[in-house]
Amino acid sequence: MKTHQITIKDIARILEISPSTVSRALKNHPDISPETKKLVQTFAEKVKYRPNALALSLRSSKTFTIGVIIPEIVHHFFSSVISGIEDVAYAAGYKVMMCQSNENDAREAINIQALLDSQVDGILISVSKTTRNSEPFQRIVENNTPIVFFDRVCEEIESDRVIVDDREGARIATQHLISLGCKQILMLGAPLHMLIGKQRLDGYKLAHEQNELAINPSLFMRCDTRDDVTKQADAILSLAPHIDGIFAVNDSTAIAAMQLLMKNGYKIPTQIKVIGFGDGPNATISSPSLSTVGQKGYEIGQESTRMLLTRISNPDLAEAFHTRVLTPELIVRESTTI
Amino acid sequence: MKTHQITIKDIARILEISPSTVSRALKNHPDISPETKKLVQTFAEKVKYRPNALALSLRSSKTFTIGVIIPEIVHHFFSSVISGIEDVAYAAGYKVMMCQSNENDAREAINIQALLDSQVDGILISVSKTTRNSEPFQRIVENNTPIVFFDRVCEEIESDRVIVDDREGARIATQHLISLGCKQILMLGAPLHMLIGKQRLDGYKLAHEQNELAINPSLFMRCDTRDDVTKQADAILSLAPHIDGIFAVNDSTAIAAMQLLMKNGYKIPTQIKVIGFGDGPNATISSPSLSTVGQKGYEIGQESTRMLLTRISNPDLAEAFHTRVLTPELIVRESTTI
Repeated sequence: MKTHQITIKDIARILEISPSTVSRALKNHPDISPETKKLVQTFAEKVKYRPNALALSLRSSKTFTIGVIIPEIVHHFFSSVISGIEDVAYAAGYKVMMCQSNENDAREAINIQALLDSQVDGILISVSKTTRNSEPFQRIVENNTPIVFFDRVCEEIESDRVIVDDREGARIATQHLISLGCKQILMLGAPLHMLIGKQRLDGYKLAHEQNELAINPSLFMRCDTRDDVTKQADAILSLAPHIDGIFAVNDSTAIAAMQLLMKNGYKIPTQIKVIGFGDGPNATISSPSLSTVGQKGYEIGQESTRMLLTRISNPDLAEAFHTRVLTPELIVRESTTI
Repeated sequence: MKTHQITIKDIARILEISPSTVSRALKNHPDISPETKKLVQTFAEKVKYRPNALALSLRSSKTFTIGVIIPEIVHHFFSSVISGIEDVAYAAGYKVMMCQSNENDAREAINIQALLDSQVDGILISVSKTTRNSEPFQRIVENNTPIVFFDRVCEEIESDRVIVDDREGARIATQHLISLGCKQILMLGAPLHMLIGKQRLDGYKLAHEQNELAINPSLFMRCDTRDDVTKQADAILSLAPHIDGIFAVNDSTAIAAMQLLMKNGYKIPTQIKVIGFGDGPNATISSPSLSTVGQKGYEIGQESTRMLLTRISNPDLAEAFHTRVLTPELIVRESTTI
């Protein structure tokens, strides 16, 4: 078991009284009974409680551990984020402990409590898709544990945040196709009730507006998995003779569409140029390799950790919370290069 | 902060005396001074220490948390293992906390300490490639924390283990090619000082022996990454006219070799059949899709967790340690199906 400096909270827990009673007993507050005062003061002396060092905080001393909660470890974006987090954290002498919510809000709440129980010095979190209730995050705040949200934030919690500009990523991708001469660009998109579905469609539209290109509504399809491409193969193939570009909301959909078109005699990129979104490992393995938009997962991890460490090192920092917005980057490969 | 049953170790920490002094003071041992006895006994009463429940163990009560240390989260095999671990653990009411060693033995040792500090109920670990020293694992044993090694074990520590039979996986893959009529099978293998390099070559050889097929030494190449395939493209292409099958030590090498051959006019699978090893997501995304060997990561995670939970629930279990060996499975896709 680690040894750590004793805090008001520790004393409260051991003596089974509230932290505020401990705090007031130590200050000889008149509301507190002489018996309780004696108990608390004698105990505090015995365990060498040091009020000056810790009076401002109910938190126990540092564990030099950062807790991370992510939706899905198997997702390449999140594993890139973790690399960024770990590189900054370990370089600063911090350890990293991770929990996976698996897009399940109940598991997320359990994970938060587990990390708080482990007395991590701060928490980095990307919110599960199923989360509707901010109460578990509120508990982190009440525990005086610094928190930084990355990629998917909880709007109700005031905190530092690091996000990527999804709309701008989609605009860049679409602009790339337009700059190469594409005029009829099929978008394979996510459901519009999902934030990335809406933002990436907005970016696609914005690029068209900026280039004074008409948007053909029949060129938007709800199709965002490899399976969707298989199921909607007929619809895609019926549009194929009329298009010169495809922007897909993620890499695996882009690759599946590319393979479908090639099997049916289309040449990529000469006849149809294809761009994805995400820049996972599949983008380099596909043939032709896939142009795409890099989401800067590694940088997100680094930046979130830097922001968290600043808060951990300066618990009394009065500075307002920041939101850092990273711009995705265009990555050009064979699927758009002749 | 969690509330938990107070233990002898807690009392020792708070009062800054050794656990054995606390234990003896509670038993009225004559070696302990009356002052210390009074302090310990009064304190134990105050904090409702329950000797009967915990007398047999210095460990604090359960946190219902399992600690996991894995080499690389980004690796598909390990993320499958994690899914298996979490499904069994959460179903049994346990939380999972993960640390990544990043194949770094120093970081692995730090992670072990962090998990012990968090008082996890048990640890699942796959050893980092750079680990030479068993001392950090010994600390887990000394802490009376149950441990199960999976996939990569530490031979010096007696414990439960779950491993896959790599040689058998390679034998199955090679046998599949032989059964389809292949007689000249190029093996793209890993360095032989690595265990998987040696075991997978052994499996390749065994399949040849079992079929009384001669092994042509010029058909083994040290080539186990996509980059290696690019660098050794000339050598592979010079062998291509003489081979009818390829067994690659992992999927990405198999896919890269397949793409190289197709670009140079070879037909897969009609002229050359290709099989990989691993069954990551790329195997289904490649075109043609890749036949491969599944490593049963999910089952490894499930089985390791079941073994760990058995030890956690039965701390006094006298049963000897087990090693569970899982057999990899053949997965047939387009790259070997005409």
